[in-house]
Amino acid sequence: MYHEEYMARALTLAEKGSGYTSPNPMVGAVIVKNGRIIGEGYHPRPGEKHAEVMAIENASESIEGAEMYCNLEPCSHDTPEKRTPPCTLRVIRENIKKVHIATIDPNPHVSGHGVNVLQSAGIPVETGLMAEEAMHLNEAYFKYIQTGLPFVHLKMAISLDGRIATSSSDSKWISDSAARKIVHELRHRYDAVLVGFNTVKADNPQLTVRLVDGRHPYRIVLDKNLSIPTHYSLVSDEFAEKTIIFTLPTADKEKKARLESRGVIVEAVQGDHNGHPDLTAVLKELGRRGITSLVVEGGGRVYTEFINQQLFDKVSMFFAPIIIGRGIEAVGDLGVTSIADAIRLQNTNYQTINDQIWVQGYRNLHETFGILAREDACLQD
Amino acid sequence: MYHEEYMARALTLAEKGSGYTSPNPMVGAVIVKNGRIIGEGYHPRPGEKHAEVMAIENASESIEGAEMYCNLEPCSHDTPEKRTPPCTLRVIRENIKKVHIATIDPNPHVSGHGVNVLQSAGIPVETGLMAEEAMHLNEAYFKYIQTGLPFVHLKMAISLDGRIATSSSDSKWISDSAARKIVHELRHRYDAVLVGFNTVKADNPQLTVRLVDGRHPYRIVLDKNLSIPTHYSLVSDEFAEKTIIFTLPTADKEKKARLESRGVIVEAVQGDHNGHPDLTAVLKELGRRGITSLVVEGGGRVYTEFINQQLFDKVSMFFAPIIIGRGIEAVGDLGVTSIADAIRLQNTNYQTINDQIWVQGYRNLHETFGILAREDACLQD
Repeated sequence: MYHEEYMARALTLAEKGSGYTSPNPMVGAVIVKNGRIIGEGYHPRPGEKHAEVMAIENASESIEGAEMYCNLEPCSHDTPEKRTPPCTLRVIRENIKKVHIATIDPNPHVSGHGVNVLQSAGIPVETGLMAEEAMHLNEAYFKYIQTGLPFVHLKMAISLDGRIATSSSDSKWISDSAARKIVHELRHRYDAVLVGFNTVKADNPQLTVRLVDGRHPYRIVLDKNLSIPTHYSLVSDEFAEKTIIFTLPTADKEKKARLESRGVIVEAVQGDHNGHPDLTAVLKELGRRGITSLVVEGGGRVYTEFINQQLFDKVSMFFAPIIIGRGIEAVGDLGVTSIADAIRLQNTNYQTINDQIWVQGYRNLHETFGILAREDACLQD
Repeated sequence: MYHEEYMARALTLAEKGSGYTSPNPMVGAVIVKNGRIIGEGYHPRPGEKHAEVMAIENASESIEGAEMYCNLEPCSHDTPEKRTPPCTLRVIRENIKKVHIATIDPNPHVSGHGVNVLQSAGIPVETGLMAEEAMHLNEAYFKYIQTGLPFVHLKMAISLDGRIATSSSDSKWISDSAARKIVHELRHRYDAVLVGFNTVKADNPQLTVRLVDGRHPYRIVLDKNLSIPTHYSLVSDEFAEKTIIFTLPTADKEKKARLESRGVIVEAVQGDHNGHPDLTAVLKELGRRGITSLVVEGGGRVYTEFINQQLFDKVSMFFAPIIIGRGIEAVGDLGVTSIADAIRLQNTNYQTINDQIWVQGYRNLHETFGILAREDACLQD
């Protein structure tokens, strides 16, 4: 096997934690001796073992002189809130011969320090192996740990002519069940899902994970007047305590109390120029609550604001092979007058799903990945 | 080699005539004996040899007892306007043992008669081999020969949010040069290109074939008031006699005379409910002139009318990875209020071109292919 295959295995192991590790990253580790994998581990969830330690403890034979492959730089810090001892010390103690990592950990508590600790102990460290794959696996973590703000992923089910609903607000179903399964999988992987009030009013959505196995995300609603009907799913189902409604400081106190009595979290933030909850304030508050990633599921006004304010990291558009004609547009006025000023997505990727196409792209890889983008040549244009 | 490979070779040969055979179909023929291809031919252009005859005459050895593969039913008719003798007679005379064809020729003069003639002469005929590929190769011919109307292909360069230009009508360039090359290749393959007056006014396009080798198409403009500036390319370049302007009977006679003095063809047709040249009348007149295929290159008003009146056969959308926001929409009001009533494209196909995606689909395969769609199970849903 080649280096890449061991690292690919580490990435596959890391993904086992998908949906459960937040606010920690997904990490996988593989221990290799004499050309054979003798130990594997991954980080299942916060407070549980780190991947490196699990791999060491699972090893089928002595790991002295073995090499370790790990998608992220091993931790070297011991802060009060941390529940596990630094992995670097364990690696040194076990006499690992060499460590291969995909990327450093931009967490200011680590950020190259883990590599330094290992190297000072005489253990060579090779970085950069499958760095791009590793960066995308933990893109939410990388954004959050460097900015304190969640990674924002706009998800749209859209017609070929750019509509997310007909003129009568019908949008069920633009995408088929295979595409909707992928959306539920996204919800499982992300900490939270956000919608605007118009979408809530039109669809009374549940925003839970039903079409795949997984855990439910926080459900975020922008509702400046707290107008959500009290019988609607988001504020009346068994997951109401996972609903966070952002409103304005002027919102009705009684409505607020009524929602809170059901376990719903109501947060008042300043208004933006249009009198809606300010998105930067919303993202800061979500970050403060430890929400590292957010899928924005509509509607058009909300998409437009996230795009206009350059507050999104990624877009997923599920194109159905239909033409709706005039209806609800996915994106409203951005003030773009020349093609050169249009938002140009980076690293676009296209995948077919039955007769649909799933387009993914990034707004600005350098802003999302921070120091990682600057270090990794493959993401520079 | 298998049957499919011989037929695939016949299709490849047929395509050599691409852009030059109209109003005839593209036809290729392969003669096989003892498992080897001993003769090949294709139809280069009207008035020249049919594929079957070219293959027979090119054969490297005696074709007695050989089998023939041909993408279209050999002709059996001898009408006054036809410049070549029926291929079926030649096939019979040469003692071909068996004939494989992809589809019958829905031309009312042939339409199964060629097969009957061969079978009556004791030559077995197998039909249906690679029928779908053969149908798409000659889709324009199949539409035209059964309806007298050109095959209409809407081509759009579009942003992910469904815009074909910014609010200031900037559209240069939504697609990159690789996509524009494909568009020029389309122009070469189609008999004519059509645009509305707004597009002419905004872009002063040439609509010629420049980025690839090929022949220039007829250039059709819808211009109800004959407002096209006389210095614009379409009415002043060296190909002005390949420009056809459709206007209304009320159009200014002097303007008409001035355009005609340059060789431009001006046709007055009845107005539609919006006071624009009626599209059905336009298509009928184009069909009458022997134009079998048409690429519609915009703008939004024209696309919307072709879609609303169900007058298109195929759509090609070249999506650039950009978001423009409010601007010129590709498709306007279609009166669609529920998703179930949206135009659902059939047989969609997706291809990437650098960072763009080319979406192709059909409006109604049964209407485009007529009796062929009814006979060929693979196109039925």
